[in-house]
Amino acid sequence: MNMPSQTRRQFIKTTSISAAALPLLGTSVLQAQTGSSKTIGFALAGLGNLSTHQLAPALQKTKYCRLTGIVTGHPAKASAWKAQYNIPDKNIYNYDNMEDMANNPDIDVVYVVTPNGLHAEHTIKAARAGKHVLCEKPMEISTEKCQQMIDECKKAGKQLAIGYRLHFEPNNLECIRLAHEQVFGQLKMIEAGFGGRFGDPNVWRFNPALSGGGCLMDMGIYALQATRYITGEEPAEVSAITSVMNHAWFKEIEESIVWEIKFPSGVLARCASTYSFSGMQRFTAFAENGWFELNPAYGYGGIHGVRSDGQPIEFPQIDQFAAEMDDFAQCILENRPTRVPGEEGLRDVKAMMAIYESARTGKTVSLA
Amino acid sequence: MNMPSQTRRQFIKTTSISAAALPLLGTSVLQAQTGSSKTIGFALAGLGNLSTHQLAPALQKTKYCRLTGIVTGHPAKASAWKAQYNIPDKNIYNYDNMEDMANNPDIDVVYVVTPNGLHAEHTIKAARAGKHVLCEKPMEISTEKCQQMIDECKKAGKQLAIGYRLHFEPNNLECIRLAHEQVFGQLKMIEAGFGGRFGDPNVWRFNPALSGGGCLMDMGIYALQATRYITGEEPAEVSAITSVMNHAWFKEIEESIVWEIKFPSGVLARCASTYSFSGMQRFTAFAENGWFELNPAYGYGGIHGVRSDGQPIEFPQIDQFAAEMDDFAQCILENRPTRVPGEEGLRDVKAMMAIYESARTGKTVSLA
Repeated sequence: MNMPSQTRRQFIKTTSISAAALPLLGTSVLQAQTGSSKTIGFALAGLGNLSTHQLAPALQKTKYCRLTGIVTGHPAKASAWKAQYNIPDKNIYNYDNMEDMANNPDIDVVYVVTPNGLHAEHTIKAARAGKHVLCEKPMEISTEKCQQMIDECKKAGKQLAIGYRLHFEPNNLECIRLAHEQVFGQLKMIEAGFGGRFGDPNVWRFNPALSGGGCLMDMGIYALQATRYITGEEPAEVSAITSVMNHAWFKEIEESIVWEIKFPSGVLARCASTYSFSGMQRFTAFAENGWFELNPAYGYGGIHGVRSDGQPIEFPQIDQFAAEMDDFAQCILENRPTRVPGEEGLRDVKAMMAIYESARTGKTVSLA
Repeated sequence: MNMPSQTRRQFIKTTSISAAALPLLGTSVLQAQTGSSKTIGFALAGLGNLSTHQLAPALQKTKYCRLTGIVTGHPAKASAWKAQYNIPDKNIYNYDNMEDMANNPDIDVVYVVTPNGLHAEHTIKAARAGKHVLCEKPMEISTEKCQQMIDECKKAGKQLAIGYRLHFEPNNLECIRLAHEQVFGQLKMIEAGFGGRFGDPNVWRFNPALSGGGCLMDMGIYALQATRYITGEEPAEVSAITSVMNHAWFKEIEESIVWEIKFPSGVLARCASTYSFSGMQRFTAFAENGWFELNPAYGYGGIHGVRSDGQPIEFPQIDQFAAEMDDFAQCILENRPTRVPGEEGLRDVKAMMAIYESARTGKTVSLA
């Protein structure tokens, strides 16, 4: 880890105080405690950018996971992955034969990385084949489908986790600690925005049947999440306005959105997302006696921030995907619940549907 | 001025490009052009903190203004100011005899610095006495009273300006230039918040009959202004949510507020104000190809910022009140309209009333 020694000391000091956070920050705790060398077999369902450039490389860094299978509709991808990751033919599936996984002990978890609107279908197929499921966020494009996923995994007796990598990211965890321990006093307000400039409208994310919406579903969910894990509360009211300036591209989904949240405590949040510009990637939490901020807050790396007392927030950069997958593997090995269950994914989808309803109706929507 | 030489060069270069901004940045232009040494006599109406600690000292730094009179309801204040600023008895008024100013050639301008809900009464008295008026913001607590002020000053043939000091502040002017010249491409979104922790609820600002509202009217107006002068547009829609966490103090006014604006171009803004914490004092403008930000953006001094290309925004700190008063004096001397007329104050009050209406009704309010 490349960090100044003062910060490293700070880090060590802080983590030794926050004992609860320790298991998240390393994967050696379970191994040290149990001496276990058992690992969990993962099949990636959906071999797009995230699987190719993040998840497969991250799996090589995990302690408790192995990439043992794939699910893809593209035979060419299957061949390439088979060669690169030494995946046997018997562990290669498509979306029509996932039920055959039931007889395959190499696969414990299916990581669903398909378009949002297919998550329920693929999660339910995996659960019915007796597999645990880790599903990318947003969980689905309706609360009903989220609930089905929860119900089917429960019926199968399998765990369902949502891919909230930032729940394992040390700088975000530190901000949660600052808020919950009221280091700067009572929390009052949060400002959070995340977006990026999209280069190509000819992708499934521009098709609402698959995406469920625009930038909110894809990137705004991070800002929403930040307001929820910093406050530790669920939104009571939301209000939102969307905008399209590039009408040639944004015919069916929002280009930009701003939304406000009132939490039961009275904490207010104002958030934004966009597909039309980059550079908005921070959250700032304002409390009675000071504030703290991550900027950038949500990326795969480079996350850091500052506090109103001048102290930097610069905990080690970790492979968030490796941490997320290792944690889920440990949960399965130890038979304990994940911190990012389907219910957590459902809460975000519920809030996002309310945000869209507010934008559509011009009315503040109550979630109480 | 204490700034790095590269920035000074930048400043000189920029101001030489933006010829329109030049008269704002110095007060020597008119003098150089006209050789005039005529000055404008100012009477301060309302001798509270702002007059005592900002306006009176600033008047000593102006080139075109003299502090020649006062209006106060407190005889003790009158005596103190008379002694400190050598003000003759004949130039000391109270709120019941302002009409006598009509016969006093020492006073050209009345600067109204009384509580918000008295601005119309004092402005109209000054106008009827044949004086120009500079009135602190917010202009008044209803659009009707704002319109009366405009009408009465027009009827009297006198100018009415609102105390928008940031319209004369070089760093804010630079941000206006960056937006309007599209230095980072088309503007897309603004984030703006301003607030402070209030130390005492036993002040007129907590009385809605005098204040017209809480933090929005007092400090939020700066964030609203920023979105208006950066976009150069008027709000088309607003949506807002207020919050009170300290119920002992905030019985009649909002403690915190968040609001969203959609502008006719499609630019979105999300804003906030508060009376319960400090440190929120920035705006960030996001454009197609980059962003720029002032933080702090709104103070009497110390304003600076940064651009997404890493360049600092650090133009000279000026006495904003001196610049504001000198500009109004020059407008009067040259018989040209102020850039911050009553109509500008009315636009903010109109937007703020819509913001309060949205918070009250839970509906997005259209201002079209």
